[in-house]
Amino acid sequence: MLKLYSFGPGANSMKPLLTLYEKGLDWEQNQLDPRKFEHHSDWYKAINPRGQVPALWDDGEIVTESTVICEYLEDEYPTEVKLRPESSYGKAQMRVWTKWVDEYFCWCVSTIGWHRYVGKMVQHLSDEEFEERVKAIPIPEQQVKWRNARAGFPQDVIDEEMRKIAVSVKRLDDHLRDNEWLVPGQYTLADICNFSIANGMQHGYPELVSKEASPGLMRWIEQINDRPAVKRMFGEVQREIVHENEKR
Amino acid sequence: MLKLYSFGPGANSMKPLLTLYEKGLDWEQNQLDPRKFEHHSDWYKAINPRGQVPALWDDGEIVTESTVICEYLEDEYPTEVKLRPESSYGKAQMRVWTKWVDEYFCWCVSTIGWHRYVGKMVQHLSDEEFEERVKAIPIPEQQVKWRNARAGFPQDVIDEEMRKIAVSVKRLDDHLRDNEWLVPGQYTLADICNFSIANGMQHGYPELVSKEASPGLMRWIEQINDRPAVKRMFGEVQREIVHENEKR
Repeated sequence: MLKLYSFGPGANSMKPLLTLYEKGLDWEQNQLDPRKFEHHSDWYKAINPRGQVPALWDDGEIVTESTVICEYLEDEYPTEVKLRPESSYGKAQMRVWTKWVDEYFCWCVSTIGWHRYVGKMVQHLSDEEFEERVKAIPIPEQQVKWRNARAGFPQDVIDEEMRKIAVSVKRLDDHLRDNEWLVPGQYTLADICNFSIANGMQHGYPELVSKEASPGLMRWIEQINDRPAVKRMFGEVQREIVHENEKR
Repeated sequence: MLKLYSFGPGANSMKPLLTLYEKGLDWEQNQLDPRKFEHHSDWYKAINPRGQVPALWDDGEIVTESTVICEYLEDEYPTEVKLRPESSYGKAQMRVWTKWVDEYFCWCVSTIGWHRYVGKMVQHLSDEEFEERVKAIPIPEQQVKWRNARAGFPQDVIDEEMRKIAVSVKRLDDHLRDNEWLVPGQYTLADICNFSIANGMQHGYPELVSKEASPGLMRWIEQINDRPAVKRMFGEVQREIVHENEKR
């Protein structure tokens, strides 16, 4: 039996969720609540010492890192639905796109998300309560990010991340105006991993992501939202709202 | 015929070099000279529009990103020498380590390398000559890095990168005290990709990387240097010295 430890359907947690639904695998859902900092609790750090979701439990073995989990599911569970190209060159193209999400695209979008929503989750806490929570975070860089999110990121950081978001949107849109999918000819983990970050930007960044501003990207976002597996996933996996600003 | 475009045997260029040598493949070497900024020249940007090495040409198809190239070589050229575990779980462990190099370890080591050596490559240029070269760089973040390297990175950046280097060394050493290789039981791309960054740190960071300070890491560095394919690679591929500070 597979068990997935994740948050709701957004960002890195969405990658394995979509992969599991597309492949139609049997698995057990273990949804952690970010508002309770469950991913920094001792029981979860016994599963992933880095205190990060998602993590996949497969018969006693634990796989971490969302992109690695997606390829693991392809390696270990070869279903009729293939989310990775057959050709070596196609695999390489897919990995260039998944690597780009992890090294560039996800970070700028994440910082702005933390700035807008996540930081607000901890503003009701006293300094002592907040530092108590920060102490439980095993990755020093994540501690710094939480402190920045609570205090408010400096404006030059916000400006730079917004610049990177515009670069990212243009890169995706340029490609998707001429191609149905990121790897030509096939819906793959490249689409799943990029969509997991890009979906919702039509609401959060309407000046950048819209039918007018980025028609290729918008068409692709809508086309993925129309997939039966994606609809099923959004229907079944509960989304958490970390702050009311995020509601739409 | 395979053609590899790379610098000499160091950092990201070393990853596919070691993979090609371990696998004993036939390939043609195209070594670019970083001192001439050949990777930002128009002829090379026609091969990789991002102006980065390494890149692999395989019968007209071009694969970029060092880690992706290594997996491509495993996918496309299944030799008797296997550099990727057979099991899905082993592959996942390998990818967690190669991902960590690309997202954390290589960046801190790279900044200090640029601070110590690369910046010195451009100090003889006039401001105009330097900006002319920067203009040819297609990635904005790389333009910023060149300007920082020339002007000198701020001390707080250097301090933070040194902190991350110490974290990285400890992570590798902790693991390698108890394990021969990064993925237990087999020499893999995880070792190749980490070694490509770690080798040489015994000279550049002797306070952190030595038999006394990090015996697991040091044993592993020496063990990899003793491999016949690694010795052959260092014997045949010319190393460029970007600045005399770097000689040893």
